[in-house]
Amino acid sequence: MKPHPASIPPEGRHRYALRVYYEDTDAGGIVYHATYLRFAERARTEALRDLGVPHAELLRNFNLMFVVRRVELDYLHAARVDDSLVVETEVIEAGGASATLRQTVRNEDGPCVRLTVRLACMAPGGNKPGRIPLRWRTVLQAMRDARPAERGTDARQDGGA
Amino acid sequence: MKPHPASIPPEGRHRYALRVYYEDTDAGGIVYHATYLRFAERARTEALRDLGVPHAELLRNFNLMFVVRRVELDYLHAARVDDSLVVETEVIEAGGASATLRQTVRNEDGPCVRLTVRLACMAPGGNKPGRIPLRWRTVLQAMRDARPAERGTDARQDGGA
Amino acid sequence: MKPHPASIPPEGRHRYALRVYYEDTDAGGIVYHATYLRFAERARTEALRDLGVPHAELLRNFNLMFVVRRVELDYLHAARVDDSLVVETEVIEAGGASATLRQTVRNEDGPCVRLTVRLACMAPGGNKPGRIPLRWRTVLQAMRDARPAERGTDARQDGGA
Amino acid sequence: MKPHPASIPPEGRHRYALRVYYEDTDAGGIVYHATYLRFAERARTEALRDLGVPHAELLRNFNLMFVVRRVELDYLHAARVDDSLVVETEVIEAGGASATLRQTVRNEDGPCVRLTVRLACMAPGGNKPGRIPLRWRTVLQAMRDARPAERGTDARQDGGA
Repeated sequence: MKPHPASIPPEGRHRYALRVYYEDTDAGGIVYHATYLRFAERARTEALRDLGVPHAELLRNFNLMFVVRRVELDYLHAARVDDSLVVETEVIEAGGASATLRQTVRNEDGPCVRLTVRLACMAPGGNKPGRIPLRWRTVLQAMRDARPAERGTDARQDGGA
Repeated sequence: MKPHPASIPPEGRHRYALRVYYEDTDAGGIVYHATYLRFAERARTEALRDLGVPHAELLRNFNLMFVVRRVELDYLHAARVDDSLVVETEVIEAGGASATLRQTVRNEDGPCVRLTVRLACMAPGGNKPGRIPLRWRTVLQAMRDARPAERGTDARQDGGA
Repeated sequence: MKPHPASIPPEGRHRYALRVYYEDTDAGGIVYHATYLRFAERARTEALRDLGVPHAELLRNFNLMFVVRRVELDYLHAARVDDSLVVETEVIEAGGASATLRQTVRNEDGPCVRLTVRLACMAPGGNKPGRIPLRWRTVLQAMRDARPAERGTDARQDGGA
Repeated sequence: MKPHPASIPPEGRHRYALRVYYEDTDAGGIVYHATYLRFAERARTEALRDLGVPHAELLRNFNLMFVVRRVELDYLHAARVDDSLVVETEVIEAGGASATLRQTVRNEDGPCVRLTVRLACMAPGGNKPGRIPLRWRTVLQAMRDARPAERGTDARQDGGA
């Protein structure tokens, strides 16, 4: 199977837009803090699809899936019902069996939540890690390499705002 | 396998208590309307367990599960964060391959939501109905028969308040 | 305030597209049954927006909101992760203080769930119904009148498949 | 108002039990990764209640609430439908306007997810931090001081298993 031509977005930053509905909020009047993990997963799924390496194919063709192993979330600013959000997804680390993403959820006032997500490639249901197949590894590494150098790969460095 | 002795609750009305957390609410300040389906499912699961016929055994021993085929929800009164709720579950119909339950979610001010839930017995993942195994059917029918006669079996009759 | 020109869709049937993610599914491998209420609410929100009468304006300008009073859901066919769904929304009844919608969630194999949703216009947090403001009532009635006559207004009639 | 006598649990470790239902899982057959944030919040709410300093009183009497500012989640082992889980909550840091908790979600096979949660005390809807009222601060510090010394206060140290 020939690798699909991946269209890496400018600066390796994929953008996914979504709207906040009542289902996403809580009685505090703002987006419920766990909701951002759902938004981030939607964005990762669409990023892989837009990059020509859908998650569904990984499962169907290789019986492997990306599983979340670690997440850090920094809550900076509350989003609200009806907000138009953008989730930016970047690859900051891409290894043979795992990858680390930086995701930022923004509304029009700026960043709301910043996530660092470590994914491992696994067989479904098991705990045994598998190697990320070439097509996916190539795209993840291209995303990583497209990031501007000055931003570095450290989650802490540019976490300020 | 000998049927477990089912302890049918008074008047065939199972009670399950739960608390409302922020996760259950929306920016309107009240419990999100879809949340009641989650509460009702928790109550059904615990009812089957308390009655000696756990859903997990149905799946493990017979490769069958109860699947929701139809729900009616009447929203009467809003529940709020920190409310102590009780979900009452009654069986109003128990056939060979399906059953209909009446569920009422109450807070201290009275009924919040009234649900009528039709369940079918199915093999997982498929659309083929299966017969409800004897142990489960016996309990469902005992629950139905324990309901006071004057309440009838019609969802509409006593739906008023 | 001049009413916005409402662009009523063909046959009064609004269409909203969405994708199924892992967040929407359960361990049965299919979309969790409560999730369809979330999908239906997203579709209603976008329908009002597309029709030029956003829900957010109803709240901001009139301190009123549409609240779900009753829902019937018929589960016909299971949707799965990665499915592309369309939610069709039609108005089957439009009164002075309430409206009834028919919503159908479809995947490529046909209708998955059919919902009938009765909404009441209310002040937030209260239980006092309010009159639906003219701009919203006009659009709801235009949607209702655009439905082909032969489909009628009865939720039961065309519920078959 | 006289401070309630807080009953600090042994070693400053509060335990909250819950069951996994279908609503908590995803099509991968395991508990959905965002669900653990909901479990952790339920446990914090019940911990404050059990310790005599309910969150609802903080809001009602002081117009303040604890807001999540940062979370780290380490996913160690998947929980499944029907599992009986325990969420252990400890206080590892208790300052004047914020606190840091360690929470561990366990099933019978061991720890499933380990969370470190930093909470800030805030007025609802705003971004202005407030001082944690004395009654709450006293309990949080007593919880922190009840932790065995050898475990230290560093989230990393004992994160291994």
